[in-house]
Amino acid sequence: MAGLKVVAIGGGTGLSTMLKGLRLYTDNITAVVTVADDGGSSGLLRHDFGMLPPGDVRNCLSALTDVNPELGELLNFRFSDGTLKGHSLGNIILAALNETSDTFDGAVKKMSALLGIVGRVYPVTNDDVTLRAILTNGSTIDGESKISQYKGIMWNRIKRIELVPDSAKALKGVISAIEEADIIVFGPGSLYTSIIPNLLVDGVLEAIQASVALKIYVCNIMTQKGETEGYSASEHLDALEAHSYKGIADIMIVNNATIPDDMAKAYSLENAQLVHIDSDKIIPRVKLMQGNLVLIQDGKVRHNFSRLARAIMNIGRDYIELQYAK
Amino acid sequence: MAGLKVVAIGGGTGLSTMLKGLRLYTDNITAVVTVADDGGSSGLLRHDFGMLPPGDVRNCLSALTDVNPELGELLNFRFSDGTLKGHSLGNIILAALNETSDTFDGAVKKMSALLGIVGRVYPVTNDDVTLRAILTNGSTIDGESKISQYKGIMWNRIKRIELVPDSAKALKGVISAIEEADIIVFGPGSLYTSIIPNLLVDGVLEAIQASVALKIYVCNIMTQKGETEGYSASEHLDALEAHSYKGIADIMIVNNATIPDDMAKAYSLENAQLVHIDSDKIIPRVKLMQGNLVLIQDGKVRHNFSRLARAIMNIGRDYIELQYAK
Repeated sequence: MAGLKVVAIGGGTGLSTMLKGLRLYTDNITAVVTVADDGGSSGLLRHDFGMLPPGDVRNCLSALTDVNPELGELLNFRFSDGTLKGHSLGNIILAALNETSDTFDGAVKKMSALLGIVGRVYPVTNDDVTLRAILTNGSTIDGESKISQYKGIMWNRIKRIELVPDSAKALKGVISAIEEADIIVFGPGSLYTSIIPNLLVDGVLEAIQASVALKIYVCNIMTQKGETEGYSASEHLDALEAHSYKGIADIMIVNNATIPDDMAKAYSLENAQLVHIDSDKIIPRVKLMQGNLVLIQDGKVRHNFSRLARAIMNIGRDYIELQYAK
Repeated sequence: MAGLKVVAIGGGTGLSTMLKGLRLYTDNITAVVTVADDGGSSGLLRHDFGMLPPGDVRNCLSALTDVNPELGELLNFRFSDGTLKGHSLGNIILAALNETSDTFDGAVKKMSALLGIVGRVYPVTNDDVTLRAILTNGSTIDGESKISQYKGIMWNRIKRIELVPDSAKALKGVISAIEEADIIVFGPGSLYTSIIPNLLVDGVLEAIQASVALKIYVCNIMTQKGETEGYSASEHLDALEAHSYKGIADIMIVNNATIPDDMAKAYSLENAQLVHIDSDKIIPRVKLMQGNLVLIQDGKVRHNFSRLARAIMNIGRDYIELQYAK
């Protein structure tokens, strides 16, 4: 095991994409992954087997599959026909392992060993949790898939996210990884449905606050309809801090590059825009780092994972050296 | 790769069980597996994806998984709930690989590499074939699952088995393996639905006949209702030869041990008995070898795979040494 100890907290494609970059620099990667998903293949397996949703974990496992990149792709293969329609193969394998393991984390551990992954992937908790959004007008939406699909209107937005039940306990391994980390990265990923749910699990915030690690928040490049519609960069930080504590991030990384016009047009049909960088509201609170982080892939705006990972590792190395100099 | 070159031809649990024994003696194992199954998980996947049935192949892959025995068990894990009910995990993985491969054999090859198996598993053909049984009264039964379930009566038994279509071509790899073999083993396994279907594929019989390998037929321990009901050992050989050629086997291995009374009773309820050894009708045709080959497992009579494999390898070694002496 070589390299800085990095803990990446989130879920969805954002997190797994960044892992592909980070593994070029360090073997000491721990992904802490939300387990609140209840839609699609994950939701179906959750229903059928009473298991935690495998999808986010599977994405991370796939990204960290070092022995055989083909194997990583195979895990993400999605059936398009018959009774298996919609399921990804990796999800089904996790379901089988879950049936023969005591805990979901046990299943993830077995799968990690079978795949020979670099680093470690943890579901943030073994407890069965779902997500609840409380809107400005006091009404609620239950379930991650419904929250993601919520096409909120400006006067009735997501005000707060909660876990149901609110007593989920973090895995010991998650706490240890946070305690020992050199760098903790939040995101990239959906703010309310991928990043914040991890912070609501008992023990996580306390460990983060106690950790001497450098804490980096990677802001999304685009706003998300309903979820973060119209949010500036500082409003992303507002939401993160409102669900944790002021000063949770030492550094915030934002993209400052534009995207092609046709791309911007396509996104605007979904009420999604480039996140506006309101530096004046950020700089007094965290160190702001910006650069071109755009990668267009399959017609979607993604983080350029190699540039993002390089930036994180460079910042981290400087920070660590500073610590050593004390 | 060390050890005698063994080609085992068949399907079902019988073949895969023997492979577990053979791999203790040689790395040079080739399993040639029938693809006529159309029932259960295999049948469903066959229907959904237009693929060849994965079950028999998966059993063999599981048996030859050397790196990690847990992995072998995982492949055979069968889901008992929800939309995945009845499917074994290995079958689903083969379905995913089949969707991303040009041929079924290509999928099997990829899976073999991923699992790091000892030896090689070949579906006998890449062609889409089903099985037809022609009964004594001239009527027919189509489909392996229906033939296996046929509870024939004495005056209307299986007379002949055919492939539909009858033009299926053997894989090149199958032919090469047969050509290069030191030993070819037929069975153990269901005579009409596991062993014989392989011999009906174009090119297989010609290659067997031309091969200088020692050819061993492993007779089942018990008769099977409908399929081989009331068959003596020589009648098993009759059926094998009727679907191939006289003298296809140099040696026939039969069990001569009895089974516990309660076991015999349970089997007799299914019209299944210990195969009677009518030596006088066998000895003039093939060399007959007999011994205690019974293993009771999960309430079923199976071949003792380590004894069977040891016998085969000892016979094979003697034969090879004789050849070398020429």
